[in-house]
Amino acid sequence: MKEKAIVLLSGGLDSTTCLSIALNEGYEVYTLSFDYGQKHNYELDLAKLNSKNMGAVKHIVCKLDPAFFRNSALTNPSLEVPKNNDSDEIPITYVPARNTVFLSYALALAESINCFNIYIGVNSLDYSGYPDCRPEFIESFEKMANLGTAFGEKQNRKVNIKVPLISLTKGEIINIGKSLDVDYSKTITCYDPIDNKACGKCDSCKLRIKGFKESNYDDETIYFENQ
Amino acid sequence: MKEKAIVLLSGGLDSTTCLSIALNEGYEVYTLSFDYGQKHNYELDLAKLNSKNMGAVKHIVCKLDPAFFRNSALTNPSLEVPKNNDSDEIPITYVPARNTVFLSYALALAESINCFNIYIGVNSLDYSGYPDCRPEFIESFEKMANLGTAFGEKQNRKVNIKVPLISLTKGEIINIGKSLDVDYSKTITCYDPIDNKACGKCDSCKLRIKGFKESNYDDETIYFENQ
Repeated sequence: MKEKAIVLLSGGLDSTTCLSIALNEGYEVYTLSFDYGQKHNYELDLAKLNSKNMGAVKHIVCKLDPAFFRNSALTNPSLEVPKNNDSDEIPITYVPARNTVFLSYALALAESINCFNIYIGVNSLDYSGYPDCRPEFIESFEKMANLGTAFGEKQNRKVNIKVPLISLTKGEIINIGKSLDVDYSKTITCYDPIDNKACGKCDSCKLRIKGFKESNYDDETIYFENQ
Repeated sequence: MKEKAIVLLSGGLDSTTCLSIALNEGYEVYTLSFDYGQKHNYELDLAKLNSKNMGAVKHIVCKLDPAFFRNSALTNPSLEVPKNNDSDEIPITYVPARNTVFLSYALALAESINCFNIYIGVNSLDYSGYPDCRPEFIESFEKMANLGTAFGEKQNRKVNIKVPLISLTKGEIINIGKSLDVDYSKTITCYDPIDNKACGKCDSCKLRIKGFKESNYDDETIYFENQ
């Protein structure tokens, strides 16, 4: 019987690559997406599509109370997603404690279905400066997760938070994904898409454009206007 | 201006005592309850009542997807709440990763409202053997919480997970609560109440009965039948 893994899947480039890696490593994969009132909710359609087409056994969408995640330009209609941002500060697209909540749900699901592996596509190189993408946060979460669950007592096993992209550049991530046949035209990274097309100007689009330039592949992204 | 605190409030004896402590320490208190499909959902009515009567500024109920918390006798209709349980094992009333999810939501709320204090009424002495009530879990969560949020970068402050009951016996908890005028007849601890009255036989009732015997006070609990 195959070992199970849960993959947090947003519909973006990183998590979709993460899904291809988990499947390639031979796991029976459960994909988990969150509807938290994000403006870019087209990503949820793509997550569902990719989960099915790439071979996960089950796709689960968890609806979260958006009131808990309102202090971000990704969720609050009165805050604009910044374009051409050059600041070193944590940007206003940061969603409070988002990855902590996402991983906690994944942990609850993992314990319910006897799964010891949770994949999350966080990345500490080409990212937007969010505190919940740092390697020390992930290590700390894994430690807490094993103290706060019954995996050890009941199964003599540990739960692992797997971050295969953590030390890769965006270009390296794209090279791995393409080697595993990921169709990046079916992913969306943009924080502020227009007619489901990438804006090309937000932090997230800029990192993706840079990533394709550094990779061995052409940019398959569909942009709203010419770059 | 008063410093803010969030208190996780279930309507039970411990969390209601925790609320009285946070209020007594002078905080502007936000109470947070969770509807996760628990059979004993009468506790949610009591939480709302106590939040208002005791002086919190706002009560928030967060509805969670019950599918994520189904592997427990507290949530699954096909699993019976055990009575007169003598086993040392983690009981089937354990809800997978419950406190991790609860604290993660509290953390998201805390970061959204600029609050640096989260109270949770966990207790490591008179408890049911749940892994997510251990002091080392709480310490680990606090460490993770500060790594995974922007409290440090944005405010040069840390978020504190406050556990004033962690090393107290149930009798000591009751003595403190009574000294702060808690009305324990307006709390419910039972995992399996009948007509909103305590069963007197589940793990949780037995700990509460023992607590009142050890305390300086009479048991105010309303039981379904004579003990």
